[in-house]
Amino acid sequence: MSVMRLGYVHVRESDLAKAVDYYTNVLGLQEVACQDGKHYFKCWDEYDHHSLVVENGGLGLVKMGYKVATQDELARVEKGAEQFGLSVSRVSAGENLGIGQAVRCTLPSEHVLELYAEAEQSGTQVGVLNPDPWPSDRSAAGIGPDRLDHLLLTAEDVQTNVDFFTQVLGFRMSERIIPGPTNEELLGAFLFCSNKAHDIAFVKGPNGKLHHFAFWLDSWNDILRAGDILGRNNVKIDFGPARHGITRGTTIYFLGPNGNRNEVFSGGYMTYADFPCITWTADQIGKAIFYIHREVNERFNTHVT
Amino acid sequence: MSVMRLGYVHVRESDLAKAVDYYTNVLGLQEVACQDGKHYFKCWDEYDHHSLVVENGGLGLVKMGYKVATQDELARVEKGAEQFGLSVSRVSAGENLGIGQAVRCTLPSEHVLELYAEAEQSGTQVGVLNPDPWPSDRSAAGIGPDRLDHLLLTAEDVQTNVDFFTQVLGFRMSERIIPGPTNEELLGAFLFCSNKAHDIAFVKGPNGKLHHFAFWLDSWNDILRAGDILGRNNVKIDFGPARHGITRGTTIYFLGPNGNRNEVFSGGYMTYADFPCITWTADQIGKAIFYIHREVNERFNTHVT
Amino acid sequence: MSVMRLGYVHVRESDLAKAVDYYTNVLGLQEVACQDGKHYFKCWDEYDHHSLVVENGGLGLVKMGYKVATQDELARVEKGAEQFGLSVSRVSAGENLGIGQAVRCTLPSEHVLELYAEAEQSGTQVGVLNPDPWPSDRSAAGIGPDRLDHLLLTAEDVQTNVDFFTQVLGFRMSERIIPGPTNEELLGAFLFCSNKAHDIAFVKGPNGKLHHFAFWLDSWNDILRAGDILGRNNVKIDFGPARHGITRGTTIYFLGPNGNRNEVFSGGYMTYADFPCITWTADQIGKAIFYIHREVNERFNTHVT
Amino acid sequence: MSVMRLGYVHVRESDLAKAVDYYTNVLGLQEVACQDGKHYFKCWDEYDHHSLVVENGGLGLVKMGYKVATQDELARVEKGAEQFGLSVSRVSAGENLGIGQAVRCTLPSEHVLELYAEAEQSGTQVGVLNPDPWPSDRSAAGIGPDRLDHLLLTAEDVQTNVDFFTQVLGFRMSERIIPGPTNEELLGAFLFCSNKAHDIAFVKGPNGKLHHFAFWLDSWNDILRAGDILGRNNVKIDFGPARHGITRGTTIYFLGPNGNRNEVFSGGYMTYADFPCITWTADQIGKAIFYIHREVNERFNTHVT
Repeated sequence: MSVMRLGYVHVRESDLAKAVDYYTNVLGLQEVACQDGKHYFKCWDEYDHHSLVVENGGLGLVKMGYKVATQDELARVEKGAEQFGLSVSRVSAGENLGIGQAVRCTLPSEHVLELYAEAEQSGTQVGVLNPDPWPSDRSAAGIGPDRLDHLLLTAEDVQTNVDFFTQVLGFRMSERIIPGPTNEELLGAFLFCSNKAHDIAFVKGPNGKLHHFAFWLDSWNDILRAGDILGRNNVKIDFGPARHGITRGTTIYFLGPNGNRNEVFSGGYMTYADFPCITWTADQIGKAIFYIHREVNERFNTHVT
Repeated sequence: MSVMRLGYVHVRESDLAKAVDYYTNVLGLQEVACQDGKHYFKCWDEYDHHSLVVENGGLGLVKMGYKVATQDELARVEKGAEQFGLSVSRVSAGENLGIGQAVRCTLPSEHVLELYAEAEQSGTQVGVLNPDPWPSDRSAAGIGPDRLDHLLLTAEDVQTNVDFFTQVLGFRMSERIIPGPTNEELLGAFLFCSNKAHDIAFVKGPNGKLHHFAFWLDSWNDILRAGDILGRNNVKIDFGPARHGITRGTTIYFLGPNGNRNEVFSGGYMTYADFPCITWTADQIGKAIFYIHREVNERFNTHVT
Repeated sequence: MSVMRLGYVHVRESDLAKAVDYYTNVLGLQEVACQDGKHYFKCWDEYDHHSLVVENGGLGLVKMGYKVATQDELARVEKGAEQFGLSVSRVSAGENLGIGQAVRCTLPSEHVLELYAEAEQSGTQVGVLNPDPWPSDRSAAGIGPDRLDHLLLTAEDVQTNVDFFTQVLGFRMSERIIPGPTNEELLGAFLFCSNKAHDIAFVKGPNGKLHHFAFWLDSWNDILRAGDILGRNNVKIDFGPARHGITRGTTIYFLGPNGNRNEVFSGGYMTYADFPCITWTADQIGKAIFYIHREVNERFNTHVT
Repeated sequence: MSVMRLGYVHVRESDLAKAVDYYTNVLGLQEVACQDGKHYFKCWDEYDHHSLVVENGGLGLVKMGYKVATQDELARVEKGAEQFGLSVSRVSAGENLGIGQAVRCTLPSEHVLELYAEAEQSGTQVGVLNPDPWPSDRSAAGIGPDRLDHLLLTAEDVQTNVDFFTQVLGFRMSERIIPGPTNEELLGAFLFCSNKAHDIAFVKGPNGKLHHFAFWLDSWNDILRAGDILGRNNVKIDFGPARHGITRGTTIYFLGPNGNRNEVFSGGYMTYADFPCITWTADQIGKAIFYIHREVNERFNTHVT
């Protein structure tokens, strides 16, 4: 598969100062740069320049970046995206701070996706020579997730987005939600380009909207610790701690100070090219989303930014 | 302190067969006896004859038993209860299956409390000679908690119940909920007779009612596993997985098939005779009950049996 | 990358009955077939026919199988292996029970490697329609790992093995052990074909030998539970519970009844095509292998089968 | 029972500066006072003035303090100790910084024990009004245990020490190690005054020596984190992470910079006055000490300070 991972999420925040404080002191990300009104953050176990960009004004997703392994693959997906019929453009190196040239396209769901093969590797604090397993100040402020993990977007037409990701970008579908045995319309699709249970997901909803973006934690114990930190900081909990039926992961969903939804996520099975897609029928949607609780709160279903 | 622990809870279940199946196969308790329509259960790490009795008809608490260390202490609390003004009677050995003679009294809150000093020690499956840390079939069916832990009852007059437990039974108060600095009426009181954060608790509400009784698990990981088993068995979740502000414990609340509420509980600090009582003011009640979420669902506040 | 994962390990056991009992009742694997003196096992979260074969006689590795995604890739690696100079042969479908046709080659280190693109998918007990996160009898007997994870072999010439895996099979090196800055001879190499920290590893030692093969557990808590089960069954512990510096994983090493070494492994970071190889110098070998203990027991260094 | 808990341990350290650095930055204790060459430390969840005193010169235990609930009980144990035949003296309030008047006695094993009923309550950082479950800087430096837990001392005559603790101080024996069914000489005795599995323990060995003193952690995950911190700081590991058969606790033993042995400990069952003493026979001593490994390293058996 040609795409490696979700490299960055770029979001709008209606109160930028509050957002910067939140990503720094509650989520415990490292601010690596601030330029032209944009704040750049990364997690402690990420090698590239940044994984989160926040800018002032409104809410929701400006764009997201997925990193591919080589320039050849970048050229290949560029061509594929054009053939698929998307609006595609090249972005010069450095137009995205710390990121090489990119291919920008607008998904059928109106979200902006950038693909790129190169980024400045600023490395991590533990380094690559006889490294410690984690930096000594990992927990000094905030949750301190290892890395950005995935995002979930809404799309009026889930199937066409899935077609693009699978046919052009080489993603595969690990799980899907359908009305039932006699109606296989995609209500939700969970796609992977790695060995994770998902690298991106789409559920039926308004085009162009962000449901959440998620950070990885190493264990269910770290989920509890994250919850404590969210509680201490009076962050609005959307749902969790909980277990997903889909992905089997463990989770807390919460709303940042301006309303963008984040998730801390841990666990889940491994996928491979021969992974048999798991199907959830709509009558089991509760168990699919929150396996223990088996029902989904209204806000989770309707709040997007 | 003269009282050792909550020895047994005796509850009514409107559908006894469903309840027996639930305590056996979901909670994973061991049924140790069935006699005269009563089913007796124990947890794997309990030495005494049983810790749970269920009988047919209705819902809620028939009575609860706390075990004291010696017959002398039993006589002392009997006298103390009479002096406190409670209705007190002696229960013959064996009237409670497997339990020695008891002192029965009716609390100011109309709950029936039995105190006893002796019980048949049927022991545990790992024994007391070169024991394994847990029985090999602990997880064969259901959650498999280590032991019964505590219960929470509602009382119109929390203070008088607390007076009885502290003055006569030697309990101490670890935490309390009050309206605020200028009104110290007890809305909730958490009492310990051991080194645990609580062995019984009372919150303001109708007399004679049961809010929940709780089983102990060893870790937050066991809480997740319990949640998975509850989900698999379609048990109604009331709230959790969550962190308590009060006690610092971790928890899931859930409703048995007939509506009695149970909890799986793990963690919490240690208490001693010199423990300084922690105070929660009503404006922080959300954080007190569910620290991460900071709000309490309506059912948790109102559903009692 | 064309190779998906370690699909099966095939080992010799000097006392087959003891080994079958051990893999069944201690490791908690499912025996899926027994034919021509070979016993076939799989883990609960594996979809293919089997992941472990044991046969009578001696100790050590008969062969290992890595699964590739397509027949085209199988043909490509066949050609690559021949060009690399290995002895290569085709194995008919079904010659390996439940496995499609394979390409068999003998590594520079004299280990036998099979690559294959197809296997009978017998599925898992939770299925792919509204599945539970784990089967209800997962813990009924033994450790019950999710899946086979990786193996570690010894090679007189680590570099040439690494050349084959990276140049022909598309693996990448996540970590390496070298004498020091002025001597970069490979004493150990950790290679991945997935997003895991390693899918195979080689350390300097006698050709053709097996150091260990490892099973995946979901958490450090599962590592403790595995340890308890090993203790209960008097399985010889080699080392652990411990933390690896290399991979950051957590681990217990132990010796099966005949002396083949197994590992239960959990955790570790994620790798991608752009992962910067981590270097350990020989003076830090203790920390590399067992980060907490920072020294390696003699048996771990010398016992291979 | 009249004794509440181990209140403080007072040890000698041959290099005081190294010891202070170790207790501060590796164990993550809070230094609360330094006076007359003595450094005073406490854990984050302890209310009293201090729980550890270190002073210059040599190694091993100067003395230990157990806190009783009232002055009456202090008088009672004073009388009991005298009647038992120990050398007993009164220590003025303040002679031990922050500690009220004490009864000092020398055990049959030549260790110095102080009992006291009062200490300055300096409180904790989270306070007792609407407290957070843990202070935000708990993990800022070092391991950060919740509290001092227990110690293990060696005694030529274990039985007489046990007699004193049980007959005079009201401790009970949770577990014992004996040669076997026909010889019940106490080789080891684990005693509790709380609901913990042990508050003090004695094993056969030279009089006056310290085997280790232990700090409490909340979970097996915290044990791993502690191990990582020990590894990062190059602290000498004695044994673990491991599971005890005795107490069922989880553990790491390690040697401070001068050689005094510490333990981080978590878990274990609850005890009550009716707890049936568990017996380990010497042939199972490996399983008793380290259940998973079932053998004890030589240093653990012989190194005392």
